Amino acid sequence: MNILIIGGGGVVGQKLAASLATRGLLRGQPISRLVLADVVDPAPLAAPFEVQTTTCDIADPASVASVVTQDTQVIYLLAAIVSAHAEEDFEAGWRINMMGTLNVLERARTLGTKPVVIFTSSIAVYGGEVPDPIVDHTFLNPQTSYGAQKAVGELLINDYSRKGFVDGRGFRLPTISVRPGKPNRAASSFMSSILREPLNGQEAICPVDDDFPHYYLSPRKCVENLIKGAEIPEADLGQNRCMMMPGRMWTIRQLIDAMTAVAGPEPARLIKWEAQPDIQRIVKGWRFDMRPEKAIKLGLEADDSFEDNIRYYLEDDKPAP
Amino acid sequence: MNILIIGGGGVVGQKLAASLATRGLLRGQPISRLVLADVVDPAPLAAPFEVQTTTCDIADPASVASVVTQDTQVIYLLAAIVSAHAEEDFEAGWRINMMGTLNVLERARTLGTKPVVIFTSSIAVYGGEVPDPIVDHTFLNPQTSYGAQKAVGELLINDYSRKGFVDGRGFRLPTISVRPGKPNRAASSFMSSILREPLNGQEAICPVDDDFPHYYLSPRKCVENLIKGAEIPEADLGQNRCMMMPGRMWTIRQLIDAMTAVAGPEPARLIKWEAQPDIQRIVKGWRFDMRPEKAIKLGLEADDSFEDNIRYYLEDDKPAP
Repeated sequence: MNILIIGGGGVVGQKLAASLATRGLLRGQPISRLVLADVVDPAPLAAPFEVQTTTCDIADPASVASVVTQDTQVIYLLAAIVSAHAEEDFEAGWRINMMGTLNVLERARTLGTKPVVIFTSSIAVYGGEVPDPIVDHTFLNPQTSYGAQKAVGELLINDYSRKGFVDGRGFRLPTISVRPGKPNRAASSFMSSILREPLNGQEAICPVDDDFPHYYLSPRKCVENLIKGAEIPEADLGQNRCMMMPGRMWTIRQLIDAMTAVAGPEPARLIKWEAQPDIQRIVKGWRFDMRPEKAIKLGLEADDSFEDNIRYYLEDDKPAP
Repeated sequence: MNILIIGGGGVVGQKLAASLATRGLLRGQPISRLVLADVVDPAPLAAPFEVQTTTCDIADPASVASVVTQDTQVIYLLAAIVSAHAEEDFEAGWRINMMGTLNVLERARTLGTKPVVIFTSSIAVYGGEVPDPIVDHTFLNPQTSYGAQKAVGELLINDYSRKGFVDGRGFRLPTISVRPGKPNRAASSFMSSILREPLNGQEAICPVDDDFPHYYLSPRKCVENLIKGAEIPEADLGQNRCMMMPGRMWTIRQLIDAMTAVAGPEPARLIKWEAQPDIQRIVKGWRFDMRPEKAIKLGLEADDSFEDNIRYYLEDDKPAP
């Protein structure tokens, strides 16, 4: 089994690669090669199979052709310009998030190899005048360019799959928390920072009130779901291959209480509260009352409690002191 | 008021142009120029204002730039590769229907003039596992490339409008019947042919059973709605500028009965019944139980009866014997 992760240098890409290295199998077959591609050369990985790292600009069809090859059987398409970045740089967002997705699908179509393509969409596809709860047949009404680009990606994944050019599956990721590493340009970045930095003994800023509700998933469960997502039998996907990935709704207060329950009262004292209207304008348009019935039926899972998310961070990611 | 109709050589484009010529006004202002652009030079038009006809390939940004100019205030974007054609020619469908729409919007963004853009989407955006009735917040789940391309166009119209680059509005057209002229490559083409040809004394083939239900609008009402659609105040469009255009559900039997009620029993005898699985596969995935509440609230209208549709054809379109 030859696997390509586009966005293989990112947090989810690296964790997915590590999990594949541990498993050694995907879709019931031994993994023979894993290619990690990203805009900057991804970190290498120890694995019981061949691992290549390479740069790739998905906005460039020739660059895509260099990583999506005749023997590529599974493509994880995780690369994206994230939400606040796509809102600032309109052109880059459409070029990378829409045209980049199109380039990958066109390359697969041209090859005629029908690879499995796992596409990460986002709950940012929801917004505007749609009633709660968000169910599997709720209208995608994004109120950011990032959300619009992800919704276009879903339509492309579905149509290229319907025509048999790829075996696509898309998953609308909840906000991933606790996300390790540095803050990024996602508007949701603070939803990890306010936990990660205090757990590392550093201050962090919370730009919203503590009753702000949102929909979360741990990186560990996200990776498990992405692997399951590749393994769902094609026939079970029905007439829409894109679905919510399960998560859970918690308020900022519940996140902080979970951190305190696991790590004691000190970290919470490092959170500074500072309203940021630009961030609020984006994140308050997002939805949080989700019913991901299709994904749950297909075996995907949310976390059991946010205490788990905190523990996963401490076990998997907290830098050694 | 300078108006551009892209797709100005088509049935709807020509009727829209004629209606604008009669009115002389749009959005409360006198029309000073109307440009009709299409892949082949559109038929000219007598009007109390300047009318230009020109060719335009919307897949080519330079060609789009030649018709969308600094003084273009209203753009009707009607041009498309139709359903069965887009199903046969996958590349042409995406190139014209997605990239063509993108080219028009990008041209407007570059000019910085914020034209009003009226985009014709289609009820082909609906399909698959979504419950009836279809309401304003029903998931767009197209089961044809044409439907997918129209759904992408809606996302583009919404995001370019949200950013203030255009004042976009999109309307999901019901099947237009009785459509004058020749059959086209839309899978729905027979839904006019089985009335138009018999009303003109010619035979026609019906490829589905007479209990096949579908959602219809007359060309006359469609044009009225497209004019109203340009005139809706921007503030009334809310957080999703695309909506169903009102129509009504009738079965093939009801269409034929209406024809008989208006034109006597002879025309119906000219219909030959001949099942066509390729056409059935496309049209049976379409939806017909629609509740276009938003559009109705904004003043758009369906036909009162299919007898009206038959009468409109006889009054507006039937060729002289």
